[in-house]
Amino acid sequence: MIRNLTALAAILALSVPAAAQEEPRAAPSPNEIVAQAQPSEWKEIAAEDLLVMRLADDADGQERKVVIQLMPAPFSQGWVQNIRTFARAHWYDNITVNRVQDNYVVQWGDVNYDNPEATGEPKPLPEGLRVMGEADYLAAGLHRAVDKLGNGSVLASDPYASKTYVFNGWPIATDARALLAWPTHCYGMVGVGRNLSPDTGTGAELYTVIGQAPRHLDRNIALVGRIVEGMEHLSSLPRGHGDLGFYAADEADKRTPILSVRVASDLPEAERPRFEYLSTEGETFARYADARANRRDPFFIVPAGGADVCNIPVPIRRIAE
Amino acid sequence: MIRNLTALAAILALSVPAAAQEEPRAAPSPNEIVAQAQPSEWKEIAAEDLLVMRLADDADGQERKVVIQLMPAPFSQGWVQNIRTFARAHWYDNITVNRVQDNYVVQWGDVNYDNPEATGEPKPLPEGLRVMGEADYLAAGLHRAVDKLGNGSVLASDPYASKTYVFNGWPIATDARALLAWPTHCYGMVGVGRNLSPDTGTGAELYTVIGQAPRHLDRNIALVGRIVEGMEHLSSLPRGHGDLGFYAADEADKRTPILSVRVASDLPEAERPRFEYLSTEGETFARYADARANRRDPFFIVPAGGADVCNIPVPIRRIAE
Repeated sequence: MIRNLTALAAILALSVPAAAQEEPRAAPSPNEIVAQAQPSEWKEIAAEDLLVMRLADDADGQERKVVIQLMPAPFSQGWVQNIRTFARAHWYDNITVNRVQDNYVVQWGDVNYDNPEATGEPKPLPEGLRVMGEADYLAAGLHRAVDKLGNGSVLASDPYASKTYVFNGWPIATDARALLAWPTHCYGMVGVGRNLSPDTGTGAELYTVIGQAPRHLDRNIALVGRIVEGMEHLSSLPRGHGDLGFYAADEADKRTPILSVRVASDLPEAERPRFEYLSTEGETFARYADARANRRDPFFIVPAGGADVCNIPVPIRRIAE
Repeated sequence: MIRNLTALAAILALSVPAAAQEEPRAAPSPNEIVAQAQPSEWKEIAAEDLLVMRLADDADGQERKVVIQLMPAPFSQGWVQNIRTFARAHWYDNITVNRVQDNYVVQWGDVNYDNPEATGEPKPLPEGLRVMGEADYLAAGLHRAVDKLGNGSVLASDPYASKTYVFNGWPIATDARALLAWPTHCYGMVGVGRNLSPDTGTGAELYTVIGQAPRHLDRNIALVGRIVEGMEHLSSLPRGHGDLGFYAADEADKRTPILSVRVASDLPEAERPRFEYLSTEGETFARYADARANRRDPFFIVPAGGADVCNIPVPIRRIAE
């Protein structure tokens, strides 16, 4: 079902020298393909786009840090800027993880804001927050960029969208002509909790996806980023047993404290994590995506022939010191 | 993208009396629709098809039980029978959870079988196991049953299959003419670990899906059931840091012991859990599936217009005592 990638794979296969073809070798796995990428195919993520969230130490006294990459333009920039505002006001310090709903989301924020088990007044919001509209769940004009790139990583339609792409480092979906585009709710993506429409949320309440992609939330909530390190510290938290997976009154002790959230560029240089992602417009990513859709490494018997946009996660790694 | 369901929804909408239409009400959520099902739409799961897996108590001394529903014919019946054989030989008693790979699988079995960190000899297998072939990953003849049902819950194609269905209580995919069908790797489904082809696994090593549906495993591994209760006891386990998410040698203490696995029909009647699922061929399921694909309850602004087969989980509940 992956268009163009199959064609690319055919070209690559034909370009293997005859000598090499005589001795059949195991096809590389997606990870092996990524490991072969040229250094120039890796793109550094700006420190301004990384958040470092420190949770309380675990029961064994081990430090738990989660690193979030914020989403670049043209998506959700008002909320992204609000999140930097919250972090710089230290507003997130001492909030808690309040909701862990299996196969759905982990959500953190002020326990007294929009929580069935609230016991006090919500803390006041910082100055300077932007108010975003529902139209901002979508971005326009992306088709011009996509067209210029020759649709290198266009995937087939899926039940949720006319087209899906992995574009500029992110999973996105579009209408048939790509006039409107939106990011997709894949595992590990981070979104902005909100109340009923027309509320669009400020960024005070955030969640990440810990199960099957809840793509029905696409275009209904702002996605603002994804977890790039430490996902397990959220995904393995004990599940909540109140409504919607919130921790109930009698399990308030399960709420994990969030000690601090900082924009990486605000940290002393020695503490600043550095990450890079594999360019989604390069040859290696095209080979990787094709291999995800058509597994030919030794374990597999029948290649799927396609892959969901949420099953082609963008390779991201720490930059070696 | 859901065919027929939309048509059904249109019929249902038209059938609302004019008086009721004058006062617009919030559309029911998928769960509210399920709560309205007639008792006759719930089907009891045979005790022979339920496994009760008891894990060691958690750190707080709380009991942890996981209930697995085994898959009915025509799928994977050789492996399913093997699993009953393992359970009845008490072979699974005192095995451990050896692998927890984030956004992928939790796997349990004999730590000395096919584990990078094995330290001893694998335990001998019980007598009477069937050896299954790769052709058994697929079932034939289902199209006759599907045709008879009028394709009530046929979903659109997705990147992995020509057609997907929720049929006879299970998520399945088929080729274009439904001549061959196979179950799909959705969240919570249980499969049989295996070595490289032509090995197909015995049922000694089992895993469940804890992330985005790894549909590339469809047709490559036997699926034998799904978790119907206690999923959180597996999905929230600490992640492993060895290769493929196996617990590394220095985290062997994270392996959760499995105290026992019993076929429910072998338990004393008082200990036998009873479960029922919502018939996937009834009117309520059709409305539920349509509502999952087109959320109209108050939180939503834009209905997705479709749903992945793994995003329409079959409602399953305990039978009230």
